[in-house]
Amino acid sequence: MRYPLRTPEPGAKRMFSLTVCDHIMIAHSFRGEEFGPAQRLHGATYAVEAEFHAPQLDRAQLLVDIGLARTELRRVLDTMDYSNLDDQPALLGVNTTTEYVAFHIHTLLVAAIREGRLGEGGRAVTGLKVLLRESPNAWAAYEGPVG
Amino acid sequence: MRYPLRTPEPGAKRMFSLTVCDHIMIAHSFRGEEFGPAQRLHGATYAVEAEFHAPQLDRAQLLVDIGLARTELRRVLDTMDYSNLDDQPALLGVNTTTEYVAFHIHTLLVAAIREGRLGEGGRAVTGLKVLLRESPNAWAAYEGPVG
Amino acid sequence: MRYPLRTPEPGAKRMFSLTVCDHIMIAHSFRGEEFGPAQRLHGATYAVEAEFHAPQLDRAQLLVDIGLARTELRRVLDTMDYSNLDDQPALLGVNTTTEYVAFHIHTLLVAAIREGRLGEGGRAVTGLKVLLRESPNAWAAYEGPVG
Amino acid sequence: MRYPLRTPEPGAKRMFSLTVCDHIMIAHSFRGEEFGPAQRLHGATYAVEAEFHAPQLDRAQLLVDIGLARTELRRVLDTMDYSNLDDQPALLGVNTTTEYVAFHIHTLLVAAIREGRLGEGGRAVTGLKVLLRESPNAWAAYEGPVG
Amino acid sequence: MRYPLRTPEPGAKRMFSLTVCDHIMIAHSFRGEEFGPAQRLHGATYAVEAEFHAPQLDRAQLLVDIGLARTELRRVLDTMDYSNLDDQPALLGVNTTTEYVAFHIHTLLVAAIREGRLGEGGRAVTGLKVLLRESPNAWAAYEGPVG
Amino acid sequence: MRYPLRTPEPGAKRMFSLTVCDHIMIAHSFRGEEFGPAQRLHGATYAVEAEFHAPQLDRAQLLVDIGLARTELRRVLDTMDYSNLDDQPALLGVNTTTEYVAFHIHTLLVAAIREGRLGEGGRAVTGLKVLLRESPNAWAAYEGPVG
Repeated sequence: MRYPLRTPEPGAKRMFSLTVCDHIMIAHSFRGEEFGPAQRLHGATYAVEAEFHAPQLDRAQLLVDIGLARTELRRVLDTMDYSNLDDQPALLGVNTTTEYVAFHIHTLLVAAIREGRLGEGGRAVTGLKVLLRESPNAWAAYEGPVG
Repeated sequence: MRYPLRTPEPGAKRMFSLTVCDHIMIAHSFRGEEFGPAQRLHGATYAVEAEFHAPQLDRAQLLVDIGLARTELRRVLDTMDYSNLDDQPALLGVNTTTEYVAFHIHTLLVAAIREGRLGEGGRAVTGLKVLLRESPNAWAAYEGPVG
Repeated sequence: MRYPLRTPEPGAKRMFSLTVCDHIMIAHSFRGEEFGPAQRLHGATYAVEAEFHAPQLDRAQLLVDIGLARTELRRVLDTMDYSNLDDQPALLGVNTTTEYVAFHIHTLLVAAIREGRLGEGGRAVTGLKVLLRESPNAWAAYEGPVG
Repeated sequence: MRYPLRTPEPGAKRMFSLTVCDHIMIAHSFRGEEFGPAQRLHGATYAVEAEFHAPQLDRAQLLVDIGLARTELRRVLDTMDYSNLDDQPALLGVNTTTEYVAFHIHTLLVAAIREGRLGEGGRAVTGLKVLLRESPNAWAAYEGPVG
Repeated sequence: MRYPLRTPEPGAKRMFSLTVCDHIMIAHSFRGEEFGPAQRLHGATYAVEAEFHAPQLDRAQLLVDIGLARTELRRVLDTMDYSNLDDQPALLGVNTTTEYVAFHIHTLLVAAIREGRLGEGGRAVTGLKVLLRESPNAWAAYEGPVG
Repeated sequence: MRYPLRTPEPGAKRMFSLTVCDHIMIAHSFRGEEFGPAQRLHGATYAVEAEFHAPQLDRAQLLVDIGLARTELRRVLDTMDYSNLDDQPALLGVNTTTEYVAFHIHTLLVAAIREGRLGEGGRAVTGLKVLLRESPNAWAAYEGPVG
């Protein structure tokens, strides 16, 4: 049984969200004149926010098990943490811009949800936004549906 | 007279938002194995962000009177601040997860808007998002229509 | 060539965003009893976040050239920085509330995008949100389409 | 009776601190070529942190009554909030740099402590640091003894 | 071998610091009229910052092993996390103000350092500051020598 | 003429500080088993805070010209920004831990002050603290005298 909501008005958005955060420290370089000095090998701390969306909560009033959400985010980030993204097989030949890495993590998390790794609660998740802060004054995100 | 906007394109979102923040310090406990150690009586500081949405501003270029918005948020939070949520009549038998408390505060603020407590400007508010930060790396929110 | 995405489900939002930040320090005053002490000449530091939206990335995996985005945001903010907004020709007779200044900056940035000042990548931008933080516990934003 | 501490080693610092925050929104201008565009009338939000120091806590394990600390900080800030510092009698002819305003607030808070406005606990305060954040990337402070 | 520094001038402070953060979510109540509504059972998220001080770095240019520092901070916090501090044997009959809990964690961490739990690098630590943020606008700390 | 202060009590600290912030994005790797996965080539965004100390302000009520302070911090950071620290001649064979990089930047800024690059005001600076945030929950600093 899901938490009962009033009949939604057409077009009105009713949405719960739950966000968990973690971070990775990576090296990488970019190809293309538009990147200027960032064409050189450099690096970044990406503070990563995974925001799960669902229109309802479960009987325990949870959107998703926050422990499982943290564990899965960590598992996904472990594939990149303390590495040079230029050498990552899954990212070969791709410019790993902040917006692209957000998309990449989004893809991995959606796969985890589909595999049932977020437990029963994961079935209720309808959307996911992944946001990466690369510095105090720049960040990028990708948001897309789940399911 | 409301601030004139160009004819909106179909499906395009044009929206103002105004956010005010406050916080509460509460005790509570959860029921259910999935909560692990959080089944024990513990507590949280919830930093609360109330984000009011409206497609237009009033003649004074206000979305809503920020003083009234602060006062109403405070009035709603006072019903829970410095308390044990397990003992709150309005929350008896409910797991007061961060996502649920966001929903609860949303419900109380929407009621306040409907009662006219945000003044004339409150009539323009079409949506509300309530976000609660429970720690530096976890937060939850509920967003829904007003009116 | 844009980054290939799966066929979107009807109504599902798939969106990249890139945000750059800067700030301005301005004086101003408000007209209207509802503003209370803010009717007096005072001021604010506005921390400004410009969030560009696009459904796809370009071949370099960029939403928009971040260097150009910073430059344009700075150019727009220079028209107001270290000034008294009450004396700004473009803002004469207007209450420069945080929500209105967000709208004003939004308008100037959209014009810059239309003039091609964000380069080729700017053509992909479909939406823009401008958020201004006026204090640690209050902020306002305007979001609208580009193009 | 104060909280018992071990005999301090020579030169070793043992210190409690308690910090409360608030903010003001002011207009001002500077005189002197070195200020560049800041010679024009502009403004700032100052997020103000008042950090009280004491080597011991009282019997209730308080450094100072946090409610009184907030009230006194607010009372001091009310003398400047929503004003043009150029017109403040207490600041006439002074360049109200962030470092100077920190010093000014420090002076007013020390006077309040000496007048007993922080209650009995205020007698234990031996030092005070006042820090003002003027933007996300610049702040200034003044620290000095009390008593 | 420690990193060589120039002969220090008399009274001049030369100090490295390394800070690691974590948090706890606790319930508690206070005794004493001065606490007002906080006499009721309520709770707090304490964001905890442990700042280790040393005048020199080791040969690997480390102040202290950051992994061990995190582990020990976590181990200390686990004694309190998800609990009601009113029931903690080590805190019975004590008002667990933020400043006192900072002192308590400081005591536990100093003991851990003395037991050699921070490894060889821990021997170089000469001071420790523990800071607890209880809300966005209030925090407290205790700083004292180690050794 | 410097801002007049009351006769200081013996041992009492009276100090102004001014802090400016910037950031760098670097790659690097560590040598030594204690570094675990950080022995691999990875990277970091270092948010850098340079805190200048002086016991008095100048006639314009400035600790130091904030524009020059920003420029010098940027000039120093440019020697490292968007680079692999493992290849930096000035850092060859050194483990570029966060605490060491803070010390390195400190050394370069002190040299700049001694060369008069902060102008006349720089002569008043008696101390400098450089703090580097490597992630949301870890940072390191070095503080030492200037002059």
